[in-house]
Amino acid sequence: MSQPILIEENAVREAIMELAEYGRFGKTGVRRLVYTPEWSDAMAACRAWAEKAGLETRIDAVGNLWARLAGRVEGSAFVTGSHIDSQKSGGRYDGALGAIAGILSLAALKEQFGTPERSLEAVVLCEEEGSRFPTAGFWGSRAIVGKTTVEDTQTTLDFNGETIGAAMREVGLDPVRVGEAKRDDIAGFIELHIEQGPVLEDAGRPVAIVDAITGIAQFEVSLVGEQNHAGAFPMDLRRDPMAGFAEIASRVIDHAHRLGRPAVTTVGRCHVDPGGSAIIPRQVQFSIDARHPDPETRQRIYAVHEALIKEVADRRGLAAHIRKMIDLEPCLCDPLLLDALSRAAERHGIPTLTMPSGAGHDAQQMSLVCPTAMVFVRSAGGRSHTPEEFSTIADCTDGIRVVAEGLRILAYR
Amino acid sequence: MSQPILIEENAVREAIMELAEYGRFGKTGVRRLVYTPEWSDAMAACRAWAEKAGLETRIDAVGNLWARLAGRVEGSAFVTGSHIDSQKSGGRYDGALGAIAGILSLAALKEQFGTPERSLEAVVLCEEEGSRFPTAGFWGSRAIVGKTTVEDTQTTLDFNGETIGAAMREVGLDPVRVGEAKRDDIAGFIELHIEQGPVLEDAGRPVAIVDAITGIAQFEVSLVGEQNHAGAFPMDLRRDPMAGFAEIASRVIDHAHRLGRPAVTTVGRCHVDPGGSAIIPRQVQFSIDARHPDPETRQRIYAVHEALIKEVADRRGLAAHIRKMIDLEPCLCDPLLLDALSRAAERHGIPTLTMPSGAGHDAQQMSLVCPTAMVFVRSAGGRSHTPEEFSTIADCTDGIRVVAEGLRILAYR
Repeated sequence: MSQPILIEENAVREAIMELAEYGRFGKTGVRRLVYTPEWSDAMAACRAWAEKAGLETRIDAVGNLWARLAGRVEGSAFVTGSHIDSQKSGGRYDGALGAIAGILSLAALKEQFGTPERSLEAVVLCEEEGSRFPTAGFWGSRAIVGKTTVEDTQTTLDFNGETIGAAMREVGLDPVRVGEAKRDDIAGFIELHIEQGPVLEDAGRPVAIVDAITGIAQFEVSLVGEQNHAGAFPMDLRRDPMAGFAEIASRVIDHAHRLGRPAVTTVGRCHVDPGGSAIIPRQVQFSIDARHPDPETRQRIYAVHEALIKEVADRRGLAAHIRKMIDLEPCLCDPLLLDALSRAAERHGIPTLTMPSGAGHDAQQMSLVCPTAMVFVRSAGGRSHTPEEFSTIADCTDGIRVVAEGLRILAYR
Repeated sequence: MSQPILIEENAVREAIMELAEYGRFGKTGVRRLVYTPEWSDAMAACRAWAEKAGLETRIDAVGNLWARLAGRVEGSAFVTGSHIDSQKSGGRYDGALGAIAGILSLAALKEQFGTPERSLEAVVLCEEEGSRFPTAGFWGSRAIVGKTTVEDTQTTLDFNGETIGAAMREVGLDPVRVGEAKRDDIAGFIELHIEQGPVLEDAGRPVAIVDAITGIAQFEVSLVGEQNHAGAFPMDLRRDPMAGFAEIASRVIDHAHRLGRPAVTTVGRCHVDPGGSAIIPRQVQFSIDARHPDPETRQRIYAVHEALIKEVADRRGLAAHIRKMIDLEPCLCDPLLLDALSRAAERHGIPTLTMPSGAGHDAQQMSLVCPTAMVFVRSAGGRSHTPEEFSTIADCTDGIRVVAEGLRILAYR
């Protein structure tokens, strides 16, 4: 094989900086919600880059942008990309870097190696974050895997009560046709994304090859006791849901600590009723978010949590209600794609780590219709969903090199 | 000594039921906020009862009602009473029962035993709850002990922004004269109140003699860590204030359990920022209310709490801020008054318990100018500050018998 593919740091820097202008606020903030004018401008910029590179472009029925480099043989294509919608107070890298990676990779492959054996496509996905339509997370990738219906376009509302269907019409999309976004001709999907955690920084590596996307469940737990006077009620006669909550939260968090990486458990929300300093609460409601990439370990963790909640509630005379709000199976990445990415990193001399993703990604949706894999780029302080998110141009470029070289291994002879 | 004093259950029932009509809502609810028309009506009813019994009445500068049965000798008077303002969603007994007890006791004493040696007074106090003017708790008793100033009448606001001075004017009181409510001629103050806790019910006794009012401190604690993604941040790299909060709340509550009665510690309030299910919080703010009637034990508890908060915060990499919001010294009741009440209960064959009060009361203010003691009446389920609060007429009557007989022991030869 010839020299490794050339990806220039300058091209990466320019693309990041240009895309960051669409929806920019403050110095480094980006607010680019799906189907808004700034989102449309960003999509147009991506399309212009792809066309300048000689790729065939099209917008699908939900507004994903596809840029194609047709191969010599008929058949399914290898796809890479990510989303360019952002959080309301997001930064330059989350999503955007993977969308840029896709277009720059295909442009470099075409320029440096010509027509591939297998077709390649770069995709720019829409509304991954659910930041405009809170129930529409993974909207673009869900349409590709055929999980979006016309009914969804009528029932999915933004914070002002506008339907996603109406918002689609404003940017020239016909919501009745969402079903047409479905694809069943994808050979594999590779998504590059910033890490959103500190593992690479902690390990001193620029790039990770992601071998699994973690399984997630979120539980809403309510503990109901008896509201009473904080002074007049002796400890031994209380049924205090705060005491139960504190014990449960401590112990589920400690359990994840003891299991060690990659187990994570978070209690991020807690509401106390009535919430007065001198009142033993009547009720405490809280969330437990617990993740693990191994399906069996994950189920074992939830069983431990449930048993713990019941034991504490019984012992303290509390009524416990547990509702499962989210339950996503782990997604194991494809060995062949992982092998191509590992060889690609080796060829460029880029030191990598193999790790699971603790966050959800479009790749998780795509795994329903094709093999998938991911590449992570080191994030400063593990920050994301904030204007402060930051990755160096050197690290971003290394990540894109791994993707581009991986696609070359997969699609060229 | 002659027969024990006669207090009729019917008279007690009638007084409770009549007073409950002023500000009544629902079947058993009472909302009677200070200086409102329903409060004025209730005050007028109390005054009418006192005058009908032949007591000399007057309203003082803040609106407390005094009903006097002058003794044979000059000098300070023994006083009994409580408040008739209620919580916004209060019941028939909290406060009201002690106000009724005062008037019925003096009426019975005058009728059955004539003129006492020492003067006796019944007092109906105003705005103990702070339910209309949240910063004006113990307003009536604070004026009696000289802690209320003209400035307070201008700066104390209700929930609509009206000053307490303006509200006073509406019921014919001149706020400039609040200083005149001060008394320095009280020989002793006895307050009857419902227990607001389940100790009497648990012990199967109708009445308690209260030998101390507990000391209270309320702390506002804030723990600041680092906000991060719940999936992407490994446990070992987190600085999670929720983990710190849960550990601290568990341990301060357990500490009070281990100390046993009368120690009580309550975490009633907790605010999580930002409070998302999939976000490791940046900050958790919470209250700790910890009470004990023994001054030294109380200080030792606070020292343990403070050391614990610092240790947990240090170990978990959190910044901890502790603010003391309330700090009230315990109030020890007067041995001579306690002795009179005990002998009174014995004379009536009423089984009593001796216990501290875990709640604050007007008696705590009064203790600044005179010896004090309290009598508690059993509360069903220990409930208070709710329309559901309930004490039987038999128990209420027993409590009033103890007060009336105690005053007889103190004021008659």
